[in-house]
Amino acid sequence: MTGAPRPWRATILTLYPEMFPGPLGLSLSGDALARGAWSIEPRNIRDHGIGRHRSVDDTPSGGGAGMVLRCDVLAAAIDAALDPDDARPRLLMSPRGRPLTQARVRALAEGEGVIVVCGRFEGVDERVIEGRGLEEVSIGDYILSGGEIAALTLLDACVRLLPGTMGKAASGEEESFEGGLLEYPHYTRPRDWEGRGIPQVLAGGNHGAIAAWRRERALEITRARRPDLLSET
Amino acid sequence: MTGAPRPWRATILTLYPEMFPGPLGLSLSGDALARGAWSIEPRNIRDHGIGRHRSVDDTPSGGGAGMVLRCDVLAAAIDAALDPDDARPRLLMSPRGRPLTQARVRALAEGEGVIVVCGRFEGVDERVIEGRGLEEVSIGDYILSGGEIAALTLLDACVRLLPGTMGKAASGEEESFEGGLLEYPHYTRPRDWEGRGIPQVLAGGNHGAIAAWRRERALEITRARRPDLLSET
Repeated sequence: MTGAPRPWRATILTLYPEMFPGPLGLSLSGDALARGAWSIEPRNIRDHGIGRHRSVDDTPSGGGAGMVLRCDVLAAAIDAALDPDDARPRLLMSPRGRPLTQARVRALAEGEGVIVVCGRFEGVDERVIEGRGLEEVSIGDYILSGGEIAALTLLDACVRLLPGTMGKAASGEEESFEGGLLEYPHYTRPRDWEGRGIPQVLAGGNHGAIAAWRRERALEITRARRPDLLSET
Repeated sequence: MTGAPRPWRATILTLYPEMFPGPLGLSLSGDALARGAWSIEPRNIRDHGIGRHRSVDDTPSGGGAGMVLRCDVLAAAIDAALDPDDARPRLLMSPRGRPLTQARVRALAEGEGVIVVCGRFEGVDERVIEGRGLEEVSIGDYILSGGEIAALTLLDACVRLLPGTMGKAASGEEESFEGGLLEYPHYTRPRDWEGRGIPQVLAGGNHGAIAAWRRERALEITRARRPDLLSET
Protein backbone atom coordinates (compact mmCIF):
# COMPACT_ATOMS: atom_id res chain seq x y z
CA MET A 1 0.00 0.00 0.00
CA THR A 2 1.09 3.53 -0.75
CA GLY A 3 0.06 6.41 1.49
CA ALA A 4 -3.07 8.49 0.96
CA PRO A 5 -2.81 10.56 -2.23
CA ARG A 6 -1.91 14.23 -1.78
CA PRO A 7 -4.96 16.42 -2.27
CA TRP A 8 -5.41 18.23 -5.57
CA ARG A 9 -4.48 21.86 -4.83
CA ALA A 10 -5.93 25.03 -6.34
CA THR A 11 -4.26 28.37 -5.62
CA ILE A 12 -6.32 31.33 -6.83
CA LEU A 13 -4.96 34.86 -7.32
CA THR A 14 -7.86 37.28 -7.28
CA LEU A 15 -9.14 40.66 -6.16
CA TYR A 16 -12.23 38.88 -4.79
CA PRO A 17 -10.98 36.06 -2.53
CA GLU A 18 -14.41 35.98 -0.87
CA MET A 19 -15.84 34.47 -4.09
CA PHE A 20 -14.04 31.18 -3.27
CA PRO A 21 -14.96 28.40 -2.73
CA GLY A 22 -18.44 29.91 -3.23
CA PRO A 23 -20.65 27.40 -5.08
CA LEU A 24 -17.84 24.83 -4.92
CA GLY A 25 -18.32 24.70 -1.15
CA LEU A 26 -21.71 23.05 -1.70
CA SER A 27 -22.88 19.84 -3.34
CA LEU A 28 -20.45 17.06 -4.29
CA SER A 29 -17.46 19.39 -4.74
CA GLY A 30 -18.13 20.77 -1.25
CA ASP A 31 -18.24 17.25 0.20
CA ALA A 32 -14.94 16.45 -1.53
CA LEU A 33 -13.44 19.69 -0.19
CA ALA A 34 -14.57 18.88 3.37
CA ARG A 35 -13.12 15.37 2.98
CA GLY A 36 -9.76 16.81 1.91
CA ALA A 37 -9.79 15.36 -1.61
CA TRP A 38 -8.90 18.86 -2.85
CA SER A 39 -7.99 22.21 -1.32
CA ILE A 40 -8.39 25.82 -2.37
CA GLU A 41 -6.24 28.79 -1.35
CA PRO A 42 -7.53 32.16 -2.53
CA ARG A 43 -4.84 34.88 -2.36
CA ASN A 44 -5.71 38.56 -2.57
CA ILE A 45 -3.74 40.38 -5.27
CA ARG A 46 -4.52 43.63 -3.45
CA ASP A 47 -2.24 42.60 -0.56
CA HIS A 48 0.55 43.48 -2.99
CA GLY A 49 -0.96 46.76 -4.16
CA ILE A 50 1.00 49.99 -4.16
CA GLY A 51 0.82 52.79 -1.62
CA ARG A 52 -1.67 53.62 1.05
CA HIS A 53 -4.60 52.70 -1.21
CA ARG A 54 -3.02 49.41 -2.30
CA SER A 55 -3.54 50.35 -5.91
CA VAL A 56 -3.35 47.44 -8.36
CA ASP A 57 -4.21 49.02 -11.72
CA ASP A 58 -3.35 51.98 -13.94
CA THR A 59 -4.46 53.49 -17.25
CA PRO A 60 -3.57 51.67 -20.50
CA SER A 61 -0.37 52.75 -22.26
CA GLY A 62 -1.41 54.37 -25.51
CA GLY A 63 -4.82 55.36 -24.16
CA GLY A 64 -8.25 53.75 -24.28
CA ALA A 65 -11.07 52.78 -21.93
CA GLY A 66 -10.68 50.89 -18.68
CA MET A 67 -7.76 50.06 -16.47
CA VAL A 68 -4.96 47.48 -16.73
CA LEU A 69 -3.71 45.24 -13.91
CA ARG A 70 -0.08 46.16 -13.19
CA CYS A 71 2.65 43.61 -13.96
CA ASP A 72 4.71 44.40 -10.86
CA VAL A 73 1.75 43.99 -8.50
CA LEU A 74 0.56 40.73 -10.03
CA ALA A 75 4.11 39.33 -10.19
CA ALA A 76 4.62 40.12 -6.49
CA ALA A 77 1.35 38.35 -5.66
CA ILE A 78 2.37 35.29 -7.70
CA ASP A 79 5.87 35.19 -6.20
CA ALA A 80 4.49 35.40 -2.65
CA ALA A 81 1.90 32.68 -3.22
CA LEU A 82 4.12 30.06 -4.85
CA ASP A 83 7.26 28.11 -4.10
CA PRO A 84 9.82 28.51 -6.88
CA ASP A 85 9.64 24.77 -7.58
CA ASP A 86 5.85 24.68 -7.83
CA ALA A 87 5.25 22.70 -11.01
CA ARG A 88 1.48 23.22 -11.28
CA PRO A 89 0.24 24.86 -14.49
CA ARG A 90 -0.15 28.65 -14.14
CA LEU A 91 -3.38 29.57 -15.85
CA LEU A 92 -4.75 33.03 -16.58
CA MET A 93 -8.48 33.03 -17.25
CA SER A 94 -8.89 35.20 -20.35
CA PRO A 95 -11.12 35.33 -23.43
CA ARG A 96 -7.89 35.54 -25.47
CA GLY A 97 -6.81 32.11 -24.26
CA ARG A 98 -6.89 28.66 -25.75
CA PRO A 99 -10.44 27.27 -25.39
CA LEU A 100 -10.84 24.85 -22.49
CA THR A 101 -11.70 21.31 -23.57
CA GLN A 102 -12.73 18.21 -21.67
CA ALA A 103 -9.39 16.60 -22.63
CA ARG A 104 -7.54 19.50 -20.98
CA VAL A 105 -9.80 19.29 -17.92
CA ARG A 106 -8.97 15.60 -17.61
CA ALA A 107 -5.22 16.30 -17.89
CA LEU A 108 -5.44 19.04 -15.22
CA ALA A 109 -7.48 16.80 -12.90
CA GLU A 110 -4.83 14.07 -13.22
CA GLY A 111 -2.07 16.50 -12.18
CA GLU A 112 -1.17 18.02 -8.80
CA GLY A 113 -3.55 20.95 -9.14
CA VAL A 114 -3.61 24.41 -10.69
CA ILE A 115 -2.60 27.99 -10.09
CA VAL A 116 -5.31 30.27 -11.47
CA VAL A 117 -4.92 34.01 -11.97
CA CYS A 118 -8.19 35.89 -12.30
CA GLY A 119 -7.96 39.01 -14.46
CA ARG A 120 -10.16 42.06 -13.94
CA PHE A 121 -10.55 45.43 -15.65
CA GLU A 122 -9.57 45.69 -19.32
CA GLY A 123 -6.87 43.09 -18.86
CA VAL A 124 -3.45 42.26 -17.44
CA ASP A 125 -0.14 43.87 -18.45
CA GLU A 126 1.27 41.58 -21.15
CA ARG A 127 4.73 41.52 -19.55
CA VAL A 128 3.63 39.55 -16.50
CA ILE A 129 2.05 36.93 -18.78
CA GLU A 130 5.47 36.45 -20.39
CA GLY A 131 7.58 37.05 -17.27
CA ARG A 132 5.74 34.58 -15.06
CA GLY A 133 4.88 32.04 -17.74
CA LEU A 134 1.11 32.38 -17.51
CA GLU A 135 -0.97 30.33 -19.92
CA GLU A 136 -4.15 32.05 -21.07
CA VAL A 137 -7.21 29.78 -20.95
CA SER A 138 -10.69 30.69 -22.18
CA ILE A 139 -13.91 29.01 -21.05
CA GLY A 140 -15.83 30.33 -24.06
CA ASP A 141 -16.34 33.07 -26.64
CA TYR A 142 -17.99 35.65 -24.41
CA ILE A 143 -16.80 38.35 -21.99
CA LEU A 144 -17.12 38.10 -18.20
CA SER A 145 -16.69 40.83 -15.61
CA GLY A 146 -13.55 39.07 -14.38
CA GLY A 147 -11.79 35.74 -14.22
CA GLU A 148 -13.39 34.56 -10.99
CA ILE A 149 -16.47 32.82 -12.40
CA ALA A 150 -14.30 31.35 -15.17
CA ALA A 151 -12.01 29.96 -12.46
CA LEU A 152 -15.01 28.45 -10.64
CA THR A 153 -16.05 26.83 -13.93
CA LEU A 154 -12.62 25.34 -14.55
CA LEU A 155 -12.34 24.08 -10.95
CA ASP A 156 -15.80 22.51 -11.00
CA ALA A 157 -14.95 20.65 -14.21
CA CYS A 158 -11.69 19.35 -12.69
CA VAL A 159 -12.93 18.53 -9.19
CA ARG A 160 -15.79 16.31 -10.39
CA LEU A 161 -13.16 14.05 -12.00
CA LEU A 162 -11.08 13.59 -8.84
CA PRO A 163 -11.23 10.03 -7.51
CA GLY A 164 -14.33 9.47 -5.42
CA THR A 165 -16.00 12.82 -6.05
CA MET A 166 -18.87 11.84 -8.32
CA GLY A 167 -18.90 8.06 -8.32
CA LYS A 168 -19.75 6.11 -11.42
CA ALA A 169 -21.57 9.02 -13.09
CA ALA A 170 -18.22 10.64 -13.83
CA SER A 171 -16.65 7.57 -15.33
CA GLY A 172 -16.83 9.59 -18.48
CA GLU A 173 -17.28 6.92 -21.05
CA GLU A 174 -20.81 7.86 -22.05
CA GLU A 175 -20.60 11.60 -21.60
CA SER A 176 -20.73 14.47 -24.05
CA PHE A 177 -17.34 15.15 -25.69
CA GLU A 178 -15.60 12.12 -24.26
CA GLY A 179 -16.40 10.19 -27.39
CA GLY A 180 -16.36 13.27 -29.60
CA LEU A 181 -20.18 13.36 -29.70
CA LEU A 182 -22.92 15.20 -27.85
CA GLU A 183 -24.91 12.96 -25.56
CA TYR A 184 -28.01 11.01 -26.61
CA PRO A 185 -31.38 11.96 -25.05
CA HIS A 186 -32.29 10.69 -21.59
CA TYR A 187 -35.62 9.40 -20.33
CA THR A 188 -36.91 8.14 -17.00
CA ARG A 189 -40.25 7.50 -15.30
CA PRO A 190 -43.14 8.23 -15.71
CA ARG A 191 -43.65 6.14 -18.82
CA ASP A 192 -46.29 8.50 -20.17
CA TRP A 193 -46.30 12.22 -19.54
CA GLU A 194 -48.61 14.75 -21.19
CA GLY A 195 -49.09 12.37 -24.11
CA ARG A 196 -45.36 11.87 -24.57
CA GLY A 197 -43.97 8.35 -24.25
CA ILE A 198 -40.53 6.84 -23.94
CA PRO A 199 -38.94 5.41 -27.12
CA GLN A 200 -39.98 1.74 -27.38
CA VAL A 201 -36.45 0.40 -27.72
CA LEU A 202 -35.48 1.68 -24.24
CA ALA A 203 -38.17 -0.45 -22.61
CA GLY A 204 -37.21 -3.61 -24.50
CA GLY A 205 -34.21 -4.81 -22.54
CA ASN A 206 -32.20 -5.55 -25.69
CA HIS A 207 -28.88 -4.01 -24.68
CA GLY A 208 -27.37 -4.16 -28.15
CA ALA A 209 -30.37 -2.40 -29.66
CA ILE A 210 -30.31 0.23 -26.89
CA ALA A 211 -26.60 0.94 -27.44
CA ALA A 212 -27.14 1.21 -31.21
CA TRP A 213 -30.13 3.55 -30.75
CA ARG A 214 -28.16 5.78 -28.37
CA ARG A 215 -25.18 5.97 -30.69
CA GLU A 216 -27.45 6.84 -33.61
CA ARG A 217 -29.21 9.61 -31.61
CA ALA A 218 -25.85 11.00 -30.42
CA LEU A 219 -24.59 11.15 -34.00
CA GLU A 220 -27.84 12.76 -35.16
CA ILE A 221 -27.77 15.45 -32.44
CA THR A 222 -24.10 16.17 -33.04
CA ARG A 223 -24.65 16.43 -36.78
CA ALA A 224 -27.53 18.86 -36.28
CA ARG A 225 -26.04 21.03 -33.53
CA ARG A 226 -22.28 20.75 -33.70
CA PRO A 227 -21.05 19.56 -37.08
CA ASP A 228 -17.70 21.13 -36.11
CA LEU A 229 -17.15 18.29 -33.62
CA LEU A 230 -17.56 15.68 -36.37
CA SER A 231 -15.20 17.37 -38.80
CA GLU A 232 -12.45 17.38 -36.18
CA THR A 233 -12.26 13.58 -36.10
CA MET B 1 -38.89 61.35 -19.84
CA THR B 2 -40.10 57.78 -19.63
CA GLY B 3 -40.27 55.96 -16.30
CA ALA B 4 -37.40 53.98 -14.83
CA PRO B 5 -36.67 50.88 -16.92
CA ARG B 6 -37.96 47.59 -15.50
CA PRO B 7 -35.11 45.59 -14.02
CA TRP B 8 -33.63 42.72 -16.00
CA ARG B 9 -35.03 39.57 -14.36
CA ALA B 10 -33.37 36.18 -13.94
CA THR B 11 -35.42 33.24 -12.67
CA ILE B 12 -33.28 30.20 -11.86
CA LEU B 13 -34.64 26.65 -11.45
CA THR B 14 -32.11 24.64 -9.48
CA LEU B 15 -31.58 22.02 -6.81
CA TYR B 16 -29.08 24.42 -5.17
CA PRO B 17 -30.85 27.77 -4.74
CA GLU B 18 -28.25 28.74 -2.12
CA MET B 19 -25.66 29.01 -4.91
CA PHE B 20 -27.38 32.24 -6.09
CA PRO B 21 -26.52 35.09 -6.34
CA GLY B 22 -23.21 33.74 -4.94
CA PRO B 23 -20.30 35.54 -6.64
CA LEU B 24 -22.79 37.77 -8.49
CA GLY B 25 -23.71 39.34 -5.14
CA LEU B 26 -20.23 40.91 -5.01
CA SER B 27 -18.31 43.35 -7.18
CA LEU B 28 -20.04 45.39 -9.90
CA SER B 29 -22.81 42.86 -10.50
CA GLY B 30 -23.55 42.94 -6.77
CA ASP B 31 -23.73 46.73 -6.80
CA ALA B 32 -26.12 46.58 -9.77
CA LEU B 33 -28.22 43.97 -7.95
CA ALA B 34 -28.39 46.13 -4.82
CA ARG B 35 -29.36 49.12 -6.96
CA GLY B 36 -32.21 47.16 -8.57
CA ALA B 37 -30.78 47.16 -12.09
CA TRP B 38 -31.42 43.43 -12.18
CA SER B 39 -33.06 40.81 -9.96
CA ILE B 40 -32.57 37.11 -9.38
CA GLU B 41 -35.16 34.58 -8.15
CA PRO B 42 -33.77 31.12 -7.45
CA ARG B 43 -36.53 28.47 -7.25
CA ASN B 44 -35.92 25.07 -5.75
CA ILE B 45 -36.91 22.22 -8.08
CA ARG B 46 -37.06 19.95 -5.03
CA ASP B 47 -40.15 21.81 -3.76
CA HIS B 48 -41.95 19.89 -6.53
CA GLY B 49 -40.34 16.54 -5.76
CA ILE B 50 -42.40 13.40 -5.26
CA GLY B 51 -43.36 11.77 -1.97
CA ARG B 52 -42.05 12.16 1.51
CA HIS B 53 -38.45 12.41 0.29
CA ARG B 54 -39.30 14.92 -2.44
CA SER B 55 -37.57 12.74 -4.98
CA VAL B 56 -36.67 14.51 -8.23
CA ASP B 57 -34.77 11.87 -10.20
CA ASP B 58 -35.00 8.25 -11.30
CA THR B 59 -32.88 5.68 -13.15
CA PRO B 60 -32.40 6.09 -16.93
CA SER B 61 -34.81 4.20 -19.19
CA GLY B 62 -32.79 1.56 -20.99
CA GLY B 63 -30.17 1.39 -18.22
CA GLY B 64 -26.84 3.07 -17.69
CA ALA B 65 -25.00 5.04 -15.02
CA GLY B 66 -26.37 8.00 -13.09
CA MET B 67 -29.85 9.38 -12.59
CA VAL B 68 -32.16 11.47 -14.77
CA LEU B 69 -34.18 14.51 -13.65
CA ARG B 70 -37.89 13.66 -14.00
CA CYS B 71 -39.94 15.54 -16.59
CA ASP B 72 -43.04 15.81 -14.40
CA VAL B 73 -41.11 17.28 -11.46
CA LEU B 74 -39.20 19.81 -13.56
CA ALA B 75 -42.35 20.80 -15.51
CA ALA B 76 -44.22 21.41 -12.22
CA ALA B 77 -41.34 23.61 -10.99
CA ILE B 78 -41.34 25.59 -14.26
CA ASP B 79 -45.13 25.98 -14.28
CA ALA B 80 -45.15 27.22 -10.67
CA ALA B 81 -42.34 29.72 -11.23
CA LEU B 82 -43.64 31.37 -14.41
CA ASP B 83 -46.69 33.22 -15.62
CA PRO B 84 -48.10 31.61 -18.77
CA ASP B 85 -47.39 34.84 -20.70
CA ASP B 86 -43.77 35.10 -19.59
CA ALA B 87 -41.91 35.77 -22.82
CA ARG B 88 -38.35 35.48 -21.51
CA PRO B 89 -36.15 32.83 -23.19
CA ARG B 90 -36.20 29.50 -21.34
CA LEU B 91 -32.64 28.24 -21.28
CA LEU B 92 -31.36 24.86 -20.13
CA MET B 93 -27.64 24.90 -19.35
CA SER B 94 -26.31 21.76 -21.03
CA PRO B 95 -23.14 20.64 -22.81
CA ARG B 96 -25.42 19.46 -25.64
CA GLY B 97 -26.61 23.01 -26.29
CA ARG B 98 -25.73 25.64 -28.80
CA PRO B 99 -22.45 27.33 -27.75
CA LEU B 100 -22.95 30.67 -26.02
CA THR B 101 -21.49 33.61 -27.95
CA GLN B 102 -21.01 37.28 -27.13
CA ALA B 103 -23.65 38.15 -29.75
CA ARG B 104 -26.18 35.95 -27.93
CA VAL B 105 -25.16 37.45 -24.58
CA ARG B 106 -25.79 40.92 -25.99
CA ALA B 107 -29.23 39.89 -27.31
CA LEU B 108 -30.17 38.38 -23.94
CA ALA B 109 -28.97 41.48 -22.06
CA GLU B 110 -31.12 43.67 -24.30
CA GLY B 111 -34.23 41.61 -23.51
CA GLU B 112 -36.38 41.39 -20.37
CA GLY B 113 -34.27 38.73 -18.71
CA VAL B 114 -33.91 34.96 -18.72
CA ILE B 115 -35.32 31.81 -17.24
CA VAL B 116 -32.48 29.39 -16.58
CA VAL B 117 -32.93 25.70 -15.76
CA CYS B 118 -29.90 24.07 -14.13
CA GLY B 119 -29.60 20.37 -14.90
CA ARG B 120 -27.92 17.91 -12.54
CA PHE B 121 -27.18 14.17 -12.61
CA GLU B 122 -26.81 12.48 -16.00
CA GLY B 123 -29.30 14.87 -17.55
CA VAL B 124 -32.92 15.91 -17.88
CA ASP B 125 -35.76 13.82 -19.33
CA GLU B 126 -35.92 14.82 -23.01
CA ARG B 127 -39.71 15.22 -22.91
CA VAL B 128 -39.65 18.27 -20.65
CA ILE B 129 -37.18 19.95 -23.00
CA GLU B 130 -39.74 19.54 -25.78
CA GLY B 131 -42.87 20.01 -23.67
CA ARG B 132 -41.77 23.25 -22.04
CA GLY B 133 -39.82 24.66 -24.96
CA LEU B 134 -36.43 24.70 -23.28
CA GLU B 135 -33.46 25.85 -25.35
CA GLU B 136 -30.22 24.07 -24.55
CA VAL B 137 -27.25 26.43 -24.18
CA SER B 138 -23.63 25.37 -23.63
CA ILE B 139 -20.93 27.59 -22.14
CA GLY B 140 -18.15 25.39 -23.52
CA ASP B 141 -16.95 21.93 -24.51
CA TYR B 142 -16.41 20.47 -21.05
CA ILE B 143 -18.58 18.82 -18.40
CA LEU B 144 -19.62 20.48 -15.14
CA SER B 145 -21.16 18.90 -12.06
CA GLY B 146 -24.40 20.75 -12.80
CA GLY B 147 -25.86 23.76 -14.54
CA GLU B 148 -25.45 26.19 -11.65
CA ILE B 149 -21.94 27.48 -12.39
CA ALA B 150 -22.85 27.63 -16.08
CA ALA B 151 -25.86 29.78 -15.12
CA LEU B 152 -23.62 32.09 -13.06
CA THR B 153 -21.34 32.42 -16.09
CA LEU B 154 -24.20 33.32 -18.42
CA LEU B 155 -25.67 35.80 -15.90
CA ASP B 156 -22.31 37.50 -15.29
CA ALA B 157 -21.82 37.98 -19.04
CA CYS B 158 -25.31 39.49 -19.40
CA VAL B 159 -25.35 41.64 -16.27
CA ARG B 160 -22.12 43.47 -17.09
CA LEU B 161 -23.80 44.76 -20.26
CA LEU B 162 -26.84 46.21 -18.47
CA PRO B 163 -26.94 50.02 -18.61
CA GLY B 164 -24.79 51.56 -15.91
CA THR B 165 -23.23 48.34 -14.59
CA MET B 166 -19.68 48.60 -15.87
CA GLY B 167 -19.35 52.10 -17.30
CA LYS B 168 -17.32 52.76 -20.41
CA ALA B 169 -15.26 49.59 -20.06
CA ALA B 170 -18.24 47.59 -21.27
CA SER B 171 -18.91 49.72 -24.30
CA GLY B 172 -17.74 46.68 -26.14
CA GLU B 173 -16.20 48.22 -29.17
CA GLU B 174 -12.63 47.27 -28.39
CA GLU B 175 -13.26 43.97 -26.68
CA SER B 176 -12.47 40.42 -27.66
CA PHE B 177 -15.08 38.93 -30.03
CA GLU B 178 -17.01 42.14 -30.56
CA GLY B 179 -14.96 42.80 -33.68
CA GLY B 180 -14.45 39.11 -34.41
CA LEU B 181 -10.86 39.28 -33.09
CA LEU B 182 -9.11 38.48 -29.84
CA GLU B 183 -7.92 41.56 -27.99
CA TYR B 184 -4.53 43.19 -28.50
CA PRO B 185 -2.00 43.13 -25.60
CA HIS B 186 -2.32 45.67 -22.79
CA TYR B 187 0.44 47.58 -21.01
CA THR B 188 0.52 50.06 -18.16
CA ARG B 189 3.02 51.56 -15.73
CA PRO B 190 5.81 50.94 -14.77
CA ARG B 191 7.56 51.73 -18.03
CA ASP B 192 10.33 49.25 -17.36
CA TRP B 193 9.84 46.05 -15.43
CA GLU B 194 12.39 43.25 -15.04
CA GLY B 195 14.07 44.43 -18.24
CA ARG B 196 10.83 44.41 -20.18
CA GLY B 197 9.67 47.67 -21.73
CA ILE B 198 6.45 48.92 -23.27
CA PRO B 199 6.25 48.95 -27.10
CA GLN B 200 7.57 52.29 -28.32
CA VAL B 201 4.51 53.15 -30.39
CA LEU B 202 2.26 53.22 -27.29
CA ALA B 203 4.32 56.00 -25.72
CA GLY B 204 4.36 58.13 -28.86
CA GLY B 205 0.95 59.76 -28.71
CA ASN B 206 0.26 59.11 -32.41
CA HIS B 207 -3.30 57.84 -32.17
CA GLY B 208 -3.44 56.57 -35.73
CA ALA B 209 -0.24 54.58 -35.28
CA ILE B 210 -1.48 53.19 -31.96
CA ALA B 211 -4.79 52.08 -33.50
CA ALA B 212 -2.95 50.45 -36.41
CA TRP B 213 -0.51 48.67 -34.06
CA ARG B 214 -3.35 47.36 -31.91
CA ARG B 215 -5.32 46.10 -34.89
CA GLU B 216 -2.20 44.34 -36.26
CA ARG B 217 -1.49 42.69 -32.88
CA ALA B 218 -5.15 41.61 -32.53
CA LEU B 219 -5.04 40.03 -36.00
CA GLU B 220 -1.72 38.34 -35.22
CA ILE B 221 -2.95 36.88 -31.92
CA THR B 222 -6.21 35.72 -33.47
CA ARG B 223 -4.37 34.10 -36.40
CA ALA B 224 -2.04 32.28 -34.00
CA ARG B 225 -4.56 31.19 -31.39
CA ARG B 226 -7.99 31.11 -32.99
CA PRO B 227 -7.83 30.85 -36.77
CA ASP B 228 -11.40 29.51 -36.55
CA LEU B 229 -12.61 33.03 -35.68
CA LEU B 230 -11.08 34.43 -38.87
CA SER B 231 -12.49 31.76 -41.15
CA GLU B 232 -16.02 32.54 -39.89
CA THR B 233 -15.99 36.03 -41.36
